[in-house]
Amino acid sequence: MTMPSEKTFPRVEPGRLEAVWTALGQTLSSEQLRRDEETRQRYARDESDSGVYPPDIIAFPETTAQVSAVFKACQAQGVPFTPCGARSGKSGGSLSLRGGVMVSLERMNRIRSVSVENLTAVVEPGVITGDLMRAADAVGLFYPPDPNSWEFCTLGGNVAENAGGPRALKYGVTRDYVLGLEWVLPDGEVLRVGRRTLKGVAGYDLVGLFVGSEGTLGVATEITLQLIPRPRHVLTALVIFDSVMRAAHALSAVLASGVLPRTLELIDEVALQAVAGKGYPFPPGAGSAVIVEVDGSTEEGLLAELAQVGEVCTRMGATETLVAQNEAQREKLWAARRLVSPGLRALRPHKISEDIVVPRSCIPSLIQQLKALGDRLGLLVATYGHAGDGNLHANILYEGPHQRPLVEEAIQQMLKLTVEMGGTITGEHGVGHAKRDYLALEQAGPVIALQRRLKTFFDPSGLLNPEKIFPAPDCF
Amino acid sequence: MTMPSEKTFPRVEPGRLEAVWTALGQTLSSEQLRRDEETRQRYARDESDSGVYPPDIIAFPETTAQVSAVFKACQAQGVPFTPCGARSGKSGGSLSLRGGVMVSLERMNRIRSVSVENLTAVVEPGVITGDLMRAADAVGLFYPPDPNSWEFCTLGGNVAENAGGPRALKYGVTRDYVLGLEWVLPDGEVLRVGRRTLKGVAGYDLVGLFVGSEGTLGVATEITLQLIPRPRHVLTALVIFDSVMRAAHALSAVLASGVLPRTLELIDEVALQAVAGKGYPFPPGAGSAVIVEVDGSTEEGLLAELAQVGEVCTRMGATETLVAQNEAQREKLWAARRLVSPGLRALRPHKISEDIVVPRSCIPSLIQQLKALGDRLGLLVATYGHAGDGNLHANILYEGPHQRPLVEEAIQQMLKLTVEMGGTITGEHGVGHAKRDYLALEQAGPVIALQRRLKTFFDPSGLLNPEKIFPAPDCF
Repeated sequence: MTMPSEKTFPRVEPGRLEAVWTALGQTLSSEQLRRDEETRQRYARDESDSGVYPPDIIAFPETTAQVSAVFKACQAQGVPFTPCGARSGKSGGSLSLRGGVMVSLERMNRIRSVSVENLTAVVEPGVITGDLMRAADAVGLFYPPDPNSWEFCTLGGNVAENAGGPRALKYGVTRDYVLGLEWVLPDGEVLRVGRRTLKGVAGYDLVGLFVGSEGTLGVATEITLQLIPRPRHVLTALVIFDSVMRAAHALSAVLASGVLPRTLELIDEVALQAVAGKGYPFPPGAGSAVIVEVDGSTEEGLLAELAQVGEVCTRMGATETLVAQNEAQREKLWAARRLVSPGLRALRPHKISEDIVVPRSCIPSLIQQLKALGDRLGLLVATYGHAGDGNLHANILYEGPHQRPLVEEAIQQMLKLTVEMGGTITGEHGVGHAKRDYLALEQAGPVIALQRRLKTFFDPSGLLNPEKIFPAPDCF
Repeated sequence: MTMPSEKTFPRVEPGRLEAVWTALGQTLSSEQLRRDEETRQRYARDESDSGVYPPDIIAFPETTAQVSAVFKACQAQGVPFTPCGARSGKSGGSLSLRGGVMVSLERMNRIRSVSVENLTAVVEPGVITGDLMRAADAVGLFYPPDPNSWEFCTLGGNVAENAGGPRALKYGVTRDYVLGLEWVLPDGEVLRVGRRTLKGVAGYDLVGLFVGSEGTLGVATEITLQLIPRPRHVLTALVIFDSVMRAAHALSAVLASGVLPRTLELIDEVALQAVAGKGYPFPPGAGSAVIVEVDGSTEEGLLAELAQVGEVCTRMGATETLVAQNEAQREKLWAARRLVSPGLRALRPHKISEDIVVPRSCIPSLIQQLKALGDRLGLLVATYGHAGDGNLHANILYEGPHQRPLVEEAIQQMLKLTVEMGGTITGEHGVGHAKRDYLALEQAGPVIALQRRLKTFFDPSGLLNPEKIFPAPDCF
């Protein structure tokens, strides 16, 4: 996440709020409509540290017709409205910056079907990602996209943000699994786009356009997802290096050797400190660790793959390779990986995490330059993440508000460096509010202008999720 | 392909043609501009049997700037223009229905880079798909999408149509490999959209919208593609069944058993007749055959996978399973598969092939009903194709023009049946001209209307590739 100073946006005038409150009361029960202070505060933030923006009203529609009616009421009264799922986003995409109505999809949380024969699932947007993973697993199927927040994020949010995760290396991201959508446009019109089949090319790929639109072009009220046969075996190994640079070079060598693991997660020496002394299998003094996970249909095949990965890594300077011997050991490795982000908060009181991607070959150079940047500015920089596909979570750790000017400089430089290497400012967290003022670093003016016109095409009033993705007019 | 009667469209008046010819001469050399009868006839058709529509002028730009200038000249003179690649499309997408200027991208055919470190390739749109496959293979990488026409189709055409192929079952379609595009909009503006990294979610997914837009929203002048490590081993087997229904049921069982082959190609008894007696390893009297191909990093693993597939198939009634013992045997199997389509033409003088997809579980029922439909109408129906992902190429064979009314009825019924099963009228060939009048069978009026408005958003004059995808006004 980046760290915009908390900004003030125009608020909705009370008369309009009363009018929309009354209109919403025609459609939703009193159980589905809130404006008490406690609820407003609860829905005022996400996981981005972008600030606190309480909505004026929170609506909890339970059907597509209700979502449509809420959208129509907001449009009729000229009140801004912002959809949200679990509010676990890291870019401020669900913040209600101008107030108005927050439209929570969390109560639309039924898994409508999981079909073994068709390799598909049909879900409502409020379904927790992990619940679908388990439902698929129970019938021998597999839903690969695995954002770290899978235990609490929602599939609707995953669709809005086009969420990724460690397994994206082999299996791609949310977008690769969305076949069809029931979609409510900003004016409340309900469409079915895409398909229910594994393939299909009839007409424009509206699903492609809507997935990743960060709640600015409408919301999904039903999602048809592709599932795949569950790989019969998974093996996980931890490879230790004495420096993150060696580890980064080894990742490239592994991929060049013809193995495509399902994850190649890098953890640098700072991130290792964050999880040290908690019983995880990292040898003291390790400079870096890589979690390698392979999957497939035979154990012998996977053992051979891991042996090959081990050989390559040893040749590239790995000091140790440990293969998880059972599910408990495997889970322990992943628990350590998930603990990195919260653990870093214990090293310094504050941290900022940037979700950047560079062409894979630039990972070693990026890490080197980020460390040098930290040294130059006197800030601790941790790097970890899905380095196999070039996606790093680069964290800046700092002591307190007095260092914020330095941190802001570090963010600027980090994103500039990323773009200069041919990279992108966001790999999987989205632009949202947190990065809108940096989008122009990466995209040319005419490309941004075209997207703004598309937003206006779909949402002429601009009332749906305002102040997101595109630079604020004064930055443009 | 479907079989619209050849229609007459308004042609461009001679004065405008002269004006655009002169304007194009300012940008292109005489070598890059043709209007002789022979060239016009050569560019008058594609592989769809949709008719013969000679363009008035054929332009061969060699740079992005030239493509842009050609588009601008056509817009300025009010002359329709239609992009084309290898004209191997099967839905009439590159037919110059209203005449005007055909813009061939075939001379932009350089592979600009293949990067082992980044797992990417940058290509011009006129590169033959097979040439990129070989260039990737030469450095240990793999470009999975494999339309049957890969030896002559172009990557620009693959992007326009979102081409698939047998390997889509495991590896997805063209869209899954396009990271970024240099794109010329209908008005000649040049944009870079997407990214060069393996992941990225900054802004709307314009790449997603443009891929598969069938040459109606602009053209790609540079394509950045993702490659993957080449699987170290591939094994191919042929499984014989005594009926296509048994084979169809067995496919489902294979996928349910947790194996994900890279192809599961079905060939029915009629299609087998089409390749009989040519030295291919199909036992006489076989009712159906399935080509199973698995890939991975160890041979032992693959042998175990194939053994499992064999077991499942035997349980489901397979009479024989033959594993290709070397590359020559493998290639022979695929040569047989590629020969099905031309071979069917030898069984009857005429054939129509429909590229339909149903939810996988409906494949047996679809085949049964198609055969019954053929019996009812007295037409021979062949079914073959990528049945593992529900994508069938259903062929109607017939004797001559006197049977066309029957054939048209068969097409209508086939597409209706497909849609009623939750399927789509085109899995990988596109709507183009051939299926535009059937799109409304599958998509609701408001969805088609939204797409028409998007077309107008990008191309207000409607001069780029007119009369494609959306139903003709009189059918709407």
